Amino acid sequence: MLATSSVNLKQLATQLGVSSSTVSRALRDSYEISSATRQRVQQLARQLDYQPNPIASNLRSSVSKTIGVILPQVDNPFFALAINGIEEEAQRNGYHVLIYLTHDKSEQEKQVAKFMTGGRVDGILLALASGTRGVGHFDKLKQLGLPIVQFDRVNDSLGTPTVTTDDYTSSYQATQHLLEAGCRTIAHLRLAECLSISSKRLQGYQAALHDHHIAFDPSLVLNGTNASEENVRRITQLLEERPTIDGIFASVERLALNSYQACQTLGIAIPQQLKIIGFSNTETASLLAPSLSTITQPAHAIGKEAARILLQALTKHRLVLPTQSVELKSELIIRASTSKQPVK
Amino acid sequence: MLATSSVNLKQLATQLGVSSSTVSRALRDSYEISSATRQRVQQLARQLDYQPNPIASNLRSSVSKTIGVILPQVDNPFFALAINGIEEEAQRNGYHVLIYLTHDKSEQEKQVAKFMTGGRVDGILLALASGTRGVGHFDKLKQLGLPIVQFDRVNDSLGTPTVTTDDYTSSYQATQHLLEAGCRTIAHLRLAECLSISSKRLQGYQAALHDHHIAFDPSLVLNGTNASEENVRRITQLLEERPTIDGIFASVERLALNSYQACQTLGIAIPQQLKIIGFSNTETASLLAPSLSTITQPAHAIGKEAARILLQALTKHRLVLPTQSVELKSELIIRASTSKQPVK
Repeated sequence: MLATSSVNLKQLATQLGVSSSTVSRALRDSYEISSATRQRVQQLARQLDYQPNPIASNLRSSVSKTIGVILPQVDNPFFALAINGIEEEAQRNGYHVLIYLTHDKSEQEKQVAKFMTGGRVDGILLALASGTRGVGHFDKLKQLGLPIVQFDRVNDSLGTPTVTTDDYTSSYQATQHLLEAGCRTIAHLRLAECLSISSKRLQGYQAALHDHHIAFDPSLVLNGTNASEENVRRITQLLEERPTIDGIFASVERLALNSYQACQTLGIAIPQQLKIIGFSNTETASLLAPSLSTITQPAHAIGKEAARILLQALTKHRLVLPTQSVELKSELIIRASTSKQPVK
Repeated sequence: MLATSSVNLKQLATQLGVSSSTVSRALRDSYEISSATRQRVQQLARQLDYQPNPIASNLRSSVSKTIGVILPQVDNPFFALAINGIEEEAQRNGYHVLIYLTHDKSEQEKQVAKFMTGGRVDGILLALASGTRGVGHFDKLKQLGLPIVQFDRVNDSLGTPTVTTDDYTSSYQATQHLLEAGCRTIAHLRLAECLSISSKRLQGYQAALHDHHIAFDPSLVLNGTNASEENVRRITQLLEERPTIDGIFASVERLALNSYQACQTLGIAIPQQLKIIGFSNTETASLLAPSLSTITQPAHAIGKEAARILLQALTKHRLVLPTQSVELKSELIIRASTSKQPVK
């Protein structure tokens, strides 16, 4: 058995009975190598804690001392806080941070991914756009050997480490909290997403309903947008058409705030007539009328942890492996918007 | 007189009686050329609407089709909205946008400026860090001929176009509004800044007091930070020490929200005991308890206009000249936090 600290490319190749060049390309996830061989190579590399030759690796990638952060939006406290966590970690390691926005559009994400192949960055932190379905536009970056770590809005098929929160569990708890406060007809508001967080949050909501013997009603699921005005219009319409709705679980912050605006317009009293809870990182949650119950993600810690995994790869010339994925816990913070009063 | 559309470098040089190389360097603000000559050259170039040779200029600068945006923070709706305006304009012109954060620290701004000399971007949009005093760290970028447009947080001595709002006038109006609502002891909260917006906002406040025959009291000016917890501590202390304070004018959004938090802690009723108005772009202003009166800057338009000036320079190979500066108007939006009720 080889000592785990000293295994090199050639030893990996010998042990696997393939050429060094095959190992090298397999480790970079090159499309030239069959998926079966790539898996064999990567598995052994992981097992033996293989570390690429720092000097060769340095020549290839660590030119810019820069990491790129691909974000769907910044007018969302979650991402603003996550950036702060990322920058804190980057600074500690002497790295610059470049931010690229996709505005939640798949087309823009594709352009950004293409743009990044130009060698501007050493590694990438990625939160996917809500409009993104496939992730093939990141293949080129992976082939170039650019390490990627996904956070919050992830797609497992990209095969990178991910840093996420317990979306399913916290959504279950939030829905359960509404049910225990007396709600029986709970709308679920979400971005029209193809993302795993979106489906996990929906699943948590469904499971809580199921455990309370309430049938899931798909017409209570409303797809929102990033435009508040349009959201308020849709929520107002839903509340008018379905006057029995007595609870709202918003899977993103903007939709919780837009629900407040819709209630303001319709003269619906929160929490007496309608209770609201939402994923949110806004500092103003406790200042709203009434104060908003939230599921609050550890946004700063998520950014910091994602950056830590990426920078460890860059500074210690390790591979980033999907097995390094981390799940952090969100916090359920009960405030006045879900207070238990008789629902009229 | 030369036709304004056809003047070239050589003609400028002939008319001024200097070499073409001197003109070229003077236009790039090179330190090798005396300030008097630079002024003479730039004045004539402006007068004759000189446009650099597109091909030569293209070789020098338009390699990356990228503009860099230097921002103090993103966890501030003003900057988040400004970015959206910038990106809208950049996309329309086929440019990429890279965002660099300084976290309001002068040291980080210096690092970013140095980093940008590496030729990553074709031009720069700049909002200064609150901690920045001098702007000498941008000299190198100017010498490299990189066009810069400043917005919101500007320093005139940098000699670039600026896009700002009517900070003095809107601060005067906000203070006047508090006075007319019955306030007599108005605190002014601001970031400890050396920026022109900060002093203009203070001056507007002072002028309104003066016109209402109220003496300016420097001990009512509180310097805040970007850390909410520390701000709440400072505001709480001020309100405890000066119980006669019946109005707060916050020159940045965070300090208005922190004032709400301080009042929550101290059990001070807004607006009955204390009225609050602040510069703010948050969508939640109308949802707060009570809804917050604001001076709202046209953040999206500011970003868009700054980008428009820069991209015109890049795509049409014009110089960016300080004379292109623009001032847009903010809007005073009166809500419940300054409602005129008898102050106890």
